[in-house]
Amino acid sequence: MRTLIIISHPTIEESLNQQFFKEASAGLPATWHHLESSYPDGKIDIETELQLLAQHDRIIFQFPFYWYSSPAHLKIWQDNVLERAAHVLKGKELGIVLTTGVAEKEYQAGGKEEYTISEFLRPYQRIANKFHMTYLPPFVLAQFMYLSQEKRWEKLIAYQQYLSLEGKPSLTQRIDWFIQRVQENQKMQEEESEKQAYIVEALTEAKEQIEDLTFTLQEMKGTSL
Amino acid sequence: MRTLIIISHPTIEESLNQQFFKEASAGLPATWHHLESSYPDGKIDIETELQLLAQHDRIIFQFPFYWYSSPAHLKIWQDNVLERAAHVLKGKELGIVLTTGVAEKEYQAGGKEEYTISEFLRPYQRIANKFHMTYLPPFVLAQFMYLSQEKRWEKLIAYQQYLSLEGKPSLTQRIDWFIQRVQENQKMQEEESEKQAYIVEALTEAKEQIEDLTFTLQEMKGTSL
Repeated sequence: MRTLIIISHPTIEESLNQQFFKEASAGLPATWHHLESSYPDGKIDIETELQLLAQHDRIIFQFPFYWYSSPAHLKIWQDNVLERAAHVLKGKELGIVLTTGVAEKEYQAGGKEEYTISEFLRPYQRIANKFHMTYLPPFVLAQFMYLSQEKRWEKLIAYQQYLSLEGKPSLTQRIDWFIQRVQENQKMQEEESEKQAYIVEALTEAKEQIEDLTFTLQEMKGTSL
Repeated sequence: MRTLIIISHPTIEESLNQQFFKEASAGLPATWHHLESSYPDGKIDIETELQLLAQHDRIIFQFPFYWYSSPAHLKIWQDNVLERAAHVLKGKELGIVLTTGVAEKEYQAGGKEEYTISEFLRPYQRIANKFHMTYLPPFVLAQFMYLSQEKRWEKLIAYQQYLSLEGKPSLTQRIDWFIQRVQENQKMQEEESEKQAYIVEALTEAKEQIEDLTFTLQEMKGTSL
C-alpha cells in the first residue's frame, strides 16, 4: 500500500508538528506532498495531481485547524482537482491528519469549541462518501508542545501506523506491525539491537498472553454452551 | 442597520443566483463586496477589510456550496482577516447565504448529501460564537433554475428581509416591512401605484386579522384561567 500525504501549511518550516510528521514518515512507503511549496501562487497543476492520486492507495489530507477547516491552499486544491478526480479516487481510503493548539477534549458539546471534530470535518467525510472512498477515523495531534516524550513516542507509532497499516487494524495486527518495524530497524542499526530485542521480546510475550486469553475465553464460551 | 455582503464566487458574471441577489439588494442599505473581483490574486488588503467590517452591523458570507464549504477565496479572506477582527465583529450578526444545485431536502440523514446544511456549516456557526456574534439561520437558495416565478418572488422578498430586517422578525414585523417597502416604491413609481395599493390593502387586512386572532386567543386564555 502506498500513501499520499497532501499537506497544507503556510509556514511549514516553522511547524514542530509537521517536522515531527515528516521525520515519522521517513522510510515508509508514503509520499510527502506540501501544497504551498509545490504551488506558491496557488496555480494547481491538475494533471500532476491526478497522476499522484492515481499512484497511491490511501490519500491523507494533513493540516492545522484554521477556522475549523483546512488552510485556504487545500481548498484551492479541492476546488481545482476534485471535480475531475472521481475515476482515480473510487475505492481508495481518505484520512485526515489534523493538528490543533486546543486540547482534544474541548471539541465537544459544553467544551470551549462546542462541536466535535467529527462534526467540523463533515465536509471531508461527505467528500469521501461521495467518491466511494473509505473514510478513516481522523488522526488528531493536539497541543504537541505540551506532550511528554513518552506521549510523543506513542503518537509517532500511531502516525506511522495511520500511514501504512491496511484497513482498520486489530491490536495484534498493530503489535505485529511494530515487531516487524523493529526487526527491520535491527538489521540497519546493530548498535541499538539489544534495547530493541528487549522490546520485541516484551511485545511478543504480550501478544502471546493476548492469544492465550483469547483461547481461554473461547474455551469458556464453549463449555457454557 | 447596515449589512456587508461578502461574496465568494469565481465566475460571478455567469451566475444567475448572484445576479438575482445583486438586483434584490439594490436600494437596500447593504454593501456588495465580491472577493474575487476585489482581490483577483488573493492578496487581501486586511486594513480595508477591517474598516468594512467596522462600518456594518450584519455580516453576510454569500457563496455557492463548493465541496460542502465556501469557494477557496473566502477561506483566504478568513485566514487573513479573522485573527485581527475580534474587536470589529463582537456583538454583530453573522448570516450565511448559500446557493446549491442540489435540492434542500437531500441535505439530511438518508438524503443524497447525508448531512444537514447546519452540520456542514458548523465551522461558520463556531466562528460566529467564538466572536460573540449572533448566528442567523442560513438563507438557502436551492435549484434556482427550477423555481417558478412565484417562488422566485417569495425568495426575493425573503432575501431582502434577510439583509435588512433586524433581529429574528415575527410575521407581523415581516408584513410591516413589506408594506413600508411598497409604500416607498409607490412614491417613486406612480404608474404602478394602483396594483401596489391593492397589495398594501390586502396585507393590512391580513395583519388586522392576525391581530384580531391574537387578541381573541389572549382573551380565551384569560377566561380559562
